[in-house]
Amino acid sequence: MLSPLPSAKAMVPFVSVENMMRLVHRLGVETVLAELADAIEADFRRWESFDKTPRIASHSRDGVIELMPTSDGNIYSFKYVNGHPLNVVEGRQTVTAFGLLADVTSGYPVLLTEMTLLTALRTAATSAMAARHLAPREARTLTLIGNGAQAEFQALAMKAVCGIETVRLYDIDPRATEKVAANLAGFGLRCVPCASTQEAVEGAQIITTCTADKQFATILTDNMIGAGVHINAIGGDCPGKTELHPDILLRSDIFVEYAPQTRIEGEIQQMPADFPVTELWQVLAGTAPGRRRPEQITLFDGVGFAIEDFSALRYVRDRLAGTGLYQELDLIADPDDPRDLFGMLQRAKP
Amino acid sequence: MLSPLPSAKAMVPFVSVENMMRLVHRLGVETVLAELADAIEADFRRWESFDKTPRIASHSRDGVIELMPTSDGNIYSFKYVNGHPLNVVEGRQTVTAFGLLADVTSGYPVLLTEMTLLTALRTAATSAMAARHLAPREARTLTLIGNGAQAEFQALAMKAVCGIETVRLYDIDPRATEKVAANLAGFGLRCVPCASTQEAVEGAQIITTCTADKQFATILTDNMIGAGVHINAIGGDCPGKTELHPDILLRSDIFVEYAPQTRIEGEIQQMPADFPVTELWQVLAGTAPGRRRPEQITLFDGVGFAIEDFSALRYVRDRLAGTGLYQELDLIADPDDPRDLFGMLQRAKP
Repeated sequence: MLSPLPSAKAMVPFVSVENMMRLVHRLGVETVLAELADAIEADFRRWESFDKTPRIASHSRDGVIELMPTSDGNIYSFKYVNGHPLNVVEGRQTVTAFGLLADVTSGYPVLLTEMTLLTALRTAATSAMAARHLAPREARTLTLIGNGAQAEFQALAMKAVCGIETVRLYDIDPRATEKVAANLAGFGLRCVPCASTQEAVEGAQIITTCTADKQFATILTDNMIGAGVHINAIGGDCPGKTELHPDILLRSDIFVEYAPQTRIEGEIQQMPADFPVTELWQVLAGTAPGRRRPEQITLFDGVGFAIEDFSALRYVRDRLAGTGLYQELDLIADPDDPRDLFGMLQRAKP
Repeated sequence: MLSPLPSAKAMVPFVSVENMMRLVHRLGVETVLAELADAIEADFRRWESFDKTPRIASHSRDGVIELMPTSDGNIYSFKYVNGHPLNVVEGRQTVTAFGLLADVTSGYPVLLTEMTLLTALRTAATSAMAARHLAPREARTLTLIGNGAQAEFQALAMKAVCGIETVRLYDIDPRATEKVAANLAGFGLRCVPCASTQEAVEGAQIITTCTADKQFATILTDNMIGAGVHINAIGGDCPGKTELHPDILLRSDIFVEYAPQTRIEGEIQQMPADFPVTELWQVLAGTAPGRRRPEQITLFDGVGFAIEDFSALRYVRDRLAGTGLYQELDLIADPDDPRDLFGMLQRAKP
């Protein structure tokens, strides 16, 4: 008996934005951030089991569209993500994303999900995971320069993972700072709006830059950076987009995700191709030192890497089980006889 | 007023396998194949306006997962496609696919669709489009060696585009041949099941090889190929998978989609890296000759290229208008204020 209905093999679970938000609320946003940090750390520790390639970028005048694939030999993942700074002008997101997990043995997709929210969560979780290993242990104050879409996620991840209690906020647009302070009310963080970058960095052990302008900007200058701080620089993440004065890079020990990609996209695009950096996974694996001295300046030059998306997608798939927070999508054809694709088409004739 | 519902900007039209089948039946499968051939030809004629890159492949023991992106500067497309020959053993498809169109200006996706069926259609349409320019004009008989999932699509595309009237069929599994003959009943093609490859090629002006085994196979040997035929070799499409004896390649004028990719994946992987080939688009653009003499053997070494998927995706988007044959998918987040992604998440709290 040949069925005209798609079989279970043809159905792919899909997590909409709506369902992703429900999942996050069901688990709790801080729990998600902390668990994501652990999931990403676990995958960074087995770094060498992953296929790694710089993302495949299609650049245009207005932005970039990127595909970020990776695989550990059992599971394959990729993310589609765009970066279009001018989108804000028309009320659109600068960054939107979706992603997919597939079974390497069959090549069949096993999860399709929105990743605009998930990327915001995993980016913050990665920053916090890096800070857990690089920032001073007693860090309780975080500075956030740039109070856009990533800011609240950064604050809550640093709270959940590193024990941050105070967040000092600065943005060139005071309304952005007001937005972050309002959104974080009730989360047990003390928010301190500041009138300048200089004021915002005072007394902070962790300084995060996450601004959106696509240019060689100088958000932080050398004089603002005191001994012993950890800098989490995540807004310099594509060619032609940086946030730090090069003098800061010369004074810091720099940690990156995947050096071949970061040399193209990160703060270190300002430096010679052989400028010394440490890949963060080596610190986690114990093969390279992290923070060695209290007065040392550590810098995480984060640009986002495919393995973080892999971890986040696997995490969502695991946490999705039993929740019902997905739709079944009839995404791939599955004829009764795999050689009879045309027969499947013919049997569907009205 | 902040809306908890996703806005129109966040919704992406999605074409399921079910709806793709409905669309094909509404338009008619031969019409779709002929119009796809025209759409692909039109894009091949403006070849130089596309970003081109060999597909990004993730190889494993059992198969390959590939991403195939391209862009013409206005529209971006990519396809996810797997190739897993052993899938058939477990009742799964060897090749499944889905794809996406996005607006280059904003990076926002504008169409997500199944592409298992669409890939079968566009592969056949590409073969027929190549044959329209390379095969003898009076070709009325087609040989199909390999009677698997691609066979009926090839037969109907060659009928719709080149006027083929007779199809000579051979497969090592006679049940596959029976399947094709049964499926093609009522389409006005004369099907001739044959007992051997040698018998199948007799009297044919176009010989198509579309077998599935991943090995260096010799489906066609030199003695089988008479003067003046056009060979449409589409089953040799990844490293380690070929169908033709190298002697045939030495006697033929070879036409390819994108030489850097075909040298890795096509029949010509058996030849030196500088073996002379012509890119098909040059024939269409009038800058290289196609068939020059009646006795000439022409060979289309087809492996499938991203621009064909681009053309097919655009075609589906254009033909979808007004049909209602799609679902709206809540794939990308779209907060009221693009900088307030976290606020959108908070407002969705139950």
